Amino acid sequence: MNSYSDYVDYLQKIADYNGAIALLSWDNEVNAPRKGAAFRGRQIATLAAEAHELFIAPEFGALLSYLSTTALTETEAHNIRLSTQDYQRATKLPVSFVKNFAEARTNAYQAWVKAREANDYSLYIPALSKIVELCREKANLMGYKGHIYNALLDEYEEGATVEMLDPLFAKIKAELVTFVQKMQQQGKTTDNSFIFKHYPKSQQWENSLELLKNIGYDMEAGRQDYAHHPFCTTFSPADVRVTTRVNENDLMGMVGNCIHEGGHALYEQGLPATQYGLPLGAAVSLGIHESQSRLWENHVGLSRDFWASQLDRVKKLFPSQLEGVSLEHFYKSINQVAPNLIRTEADELHYHLHVLIRYEIEKGLTDGSISVENLAKVWNEKYKTILGVDVPNDKQGVLQDIHWAEGLFGYFPTYSLGSFYAAQFFAKAVAQYPEIPAQIAAGNTTTLLKWLRENVHQYGRTFLPNELCRQATGEPLNVDYFLNYIKHKYAEIYQIEA
Amino acid sequence: MNSYSDYVDYLQKIADYNGAIALLSWDNEVNAPRKGAAFRGRQIATLAAEAHELFIAPEFGALLSYLSTTALTETEAHNIRLSTQDYQRATKLPVSFVKNFAEARTNAYQAWVKAREANDYSLYIPALSKIVELCREKANLMGYKGHIYNALLDEYEEGATVEMLDPLFAKIKAELVTFVQKMQQQGKTTDNSFIFKHYPKSQQWENSLELLKNIGYDMEAGRQDYAHHPFCTTFSPADVRVTTRVNENDLMGMVGNCIHEGGHALYEQGLPATQYGLPLGAAVSLGIHESQSRLWENHVGLSRDFWASQLDRVKKLFPSQLEGVSLEHFYKSINQVAPNLIRTEADELHYHLHVLIRYEIEKGLTDGSISVENLAKVWNEKYKTILGVDVPNDKQGVLQDIHWAEGLFGYFPTYSLGSFYAAQFFAKAVAQYPEIPAQIAAGNTTTLLKWLRENVHQYGRTFLPNELCRQATGEPLNVDYFLNYIKHKYAEIYQIEA
Repeated sequence: MNSYSDYVDYLQKIADYNGAIALLSWDNEVNAPRKGAAFRGRQIATLAAEAHELFIAPEFGALLSYLSTTALTETEAHNIRLSTQDYQRATKLPVSFVKNFAEARTNAYQAWVKAREANDYSLYIPALSKIVELCREKANLMGYKGHIYNALLDEYEEGATVEMLDPLFAKIKAELVTFVQKMQQQGKTTDNSFIFKHYPKSQQWENSLELLKNIGYDMEAGRQDYAHHPFCTTFSPADVRVTTRVNENDLMGMVGNCIHEGGHALYEQGLPATQYGLPLGAAVSLGIHESQSRLWENHVGLSRDFWASQLDRVKKLFPSQLEGVSLEHFYKSINQVAPNLIRTEADELHYHLHVLIRYEIEKGLTDGSISVENLAKVWNEKYKTILGVDVPNDKQGVLQDIHWAEGLFGYFPTYSLGSFYAAQFFAKAVAQYPEIPAQIAAGNTTTLLKWLRENVHQYGRTFLPNELCRQATGEPLNVDYFLNYIKHKYAEIYQIEA
Repeated sequence: MNSYSDYVDYLQKIADYNGAIALLSWDNEVNAPRKGAAFRGRQIATLAAEAHELFIAPEFGALLSYLSTTALTETEAHNIRLSTQDYQRATKLPVSFVKNFAEARTNAYQAWVKAREANDYSLYIPALSKIVELCREKANLMGYKGHIYNALLDEYEEGATVEMLDPLFAKIKAELVTFVQKMQQQGKTTDNSFIFKHYPKSQQWENSLELLKNIGYDMEAGRQDYAHHPFCTTFSPADVRVTTRVNENDLMGMVGNCIHEGGHALYEQGLPATQYGLPLGAAVSLGIHESQSRLWENHVGLSRDFWASQLDRVKKLFPSQLEGVSLEHFYKSINQVAPNLIRTEADELHYHLHVLIRYEIEKGLTDGSISVENLAKVWNEKYKTILGVDVPNDKQGVLQDIHWAEGLFGYFPTYSLGSFYAAQFFAKAVAQYPEIPAQIAAGNTTTLLKWLRENVHQYGRTFLPNELCRQATGEPLNVDYFLNYIKHKYAEIYQIEA
């Protein structure tokens, strides 16, 4: 191997493996019969190990070294620089570790499902302990400065550290808690009970497909299926799938999930297909990825403008349930906020307190100040202190998220970063194209999507997250955009001062 | 690599690849969005090339050589012998030949499509001539005793030869052609028009799932989905899936497809999971595989006994369509037979005359006694002589099958061998457990499945097909079982003498 074209072939071969692995995993969550899980686990582990082995092969390292000294186009040289960085990171993890970790994740997923079924956290402890142990091992293999958790954070959001996030979450916590208290003490609530009437599964499904189409998701380059947990997965730039779940007694749960996963999918569908398998064809970070889902979920999907274009259509699906509900009443109803137990059902205010709790727990589990055995107790205490709620059982508490079963330590903070980036991107897009709100109110999201395609999606990993933010908005991440958005919006809805 | 355990790991790794490839292909037919096809194609090609390269690697050959000289258990030694044979076969064809053959198949497929569009066999002649030439070359490279066609047969049905098949097909030809003529001249037909009423998709789906459960298909180790073409695919012994299709104007099309694919799936679900990826965990041949699908499809699914247990249930799904249809009328209706032009639409009787014609032609093409130029003429003459039908055009004649365009010479006879083995297996199972028919009439197929599990499935590739038949039934393949079954059954239905 001695040419850029060899490099492309090599990485695209790895991308083929990764596409297959993604499908094996998707199928496991969407279709696979119960008894097939063990064989499926080993198939995923085998391909993951092979893909990793290919990526860390010394001959690939040699090719990267060689190509970094040859004359290449700017794009080519950029890919080589990013791959060199990825190679250096990846060669820190031995193949045996990658395989063990994949198997531990499969086991933990099964244990998590069983523990949830039994509503008993203790059934999850052995498998989760193994995950935590391997995450610590991983952090030590990767190396870090400061807190051990920094090694895990860096994998999902390059440059993010405990030292950076601690003050950031402190500021958000202080301002949000004060504002939320003011809302609870002085705000006027709206009766939103119509949202929790009976909404049959089949019409909710139909609604969800319409929502995906309306935000611009390409149904010929993806599909939606049911799964325990909503997620978005990519097999190729031309096959980006989403999953959802339904609660027949909640109109907005599926709506939020669908628009959220749809936002992720729009990003993946907008990455340059010509860069398949190459760094410049990949998403830059989880925080930026989450900014795309949050932007659509909150700034579009919870806006008065969006529902001006959707409500009549949705009323046709649910004529009796939505009889007499005005746009104004609908808008205020879907934006009623309150402390709650389940992160994925949290509103866009309290959501960040849920993330904060996970952030503190992950730090504690990785540095050993919190034990897996004691985790359910710690969880419940934090929910009481920070959110003011009593956790009645494990399923609604510590067992609610799939992330730890999948070994995704360091992932949760990116959800909040996503919301902060989202607010900044949306504000900038509207400043640049003031017609966007009126277009959305008319059922047209194309200008907004165009702005995201041009300012975020098309770049892949061209810029680091915060640099991408600066390129797109003229300044680095500034949490005031998020706070301003939240305060302006909810002050109006709750009729209080911002 | 120097131990039996290394050998197991190596083959199970290849099995992991093959499981992933099977899933990528299944998803392509069942779920995948239109635009994803090109990326999916390259993902399958990448994994298939890797799996093949692993299998023909010289170090694997060296491991087999070494292990064949070491002390192993009987089972272990058996796997090594079979893998050595597989390895020798796989490495016999030079890379240049494999490449030429792949190109010839691509050309032949395109020529076949064009010739079908133009309904003109002559457009297919050059490409098909090349295929025949390469199949002869392949036979010479593989080596054979007796007729040159034996080398091609051996690939799909080990041990099958012209010397074995000639007397079988001669007997079929002599007895079946006479019997069919007698049925047509003297037989009493039954009005089966109720089968072609409107049967809604959702109830047909429900019926198909019940049928699969009733024959013993394990829904927790598989699933059924819709696809353009019915097929069975294996991801692991614990995940064997089937697909089906529906015609709302034909009750029995989906029934037949489901039970047929279900029969294949029962075989795969019955292979020993402990031998995952190893020869003893694999199906022995196409003929034996087809015997399992045919046994369930015909000996069970078209039997009076089976419908004695199913008809009341099916009537509840389709009360108006099946109103007043007695078991006797139903049984006779689903067994109405007639000569036809298209193999895939043929009944269980005439089907073997279609295969017989292809068998005679493939022999003649490989030994040079039939020329490709003259093939359409030969085809039409044989259809007139053997099936008594006039072929109106090439598309409904010599151009109907894709097999030759894909280089699959030697494949067709396994379809008939499947039915012949099925009749012998079923007769033996009933002789050994005379309660089987009454059990089936009571909706219980467990004894029959137990017999197949114990006498066929569990052995994997332990015995060659005909030896498996001798072990299971006490004698080698004997086509009289099939002829007795057919004559006894249809003589009664058509009220003629057997």
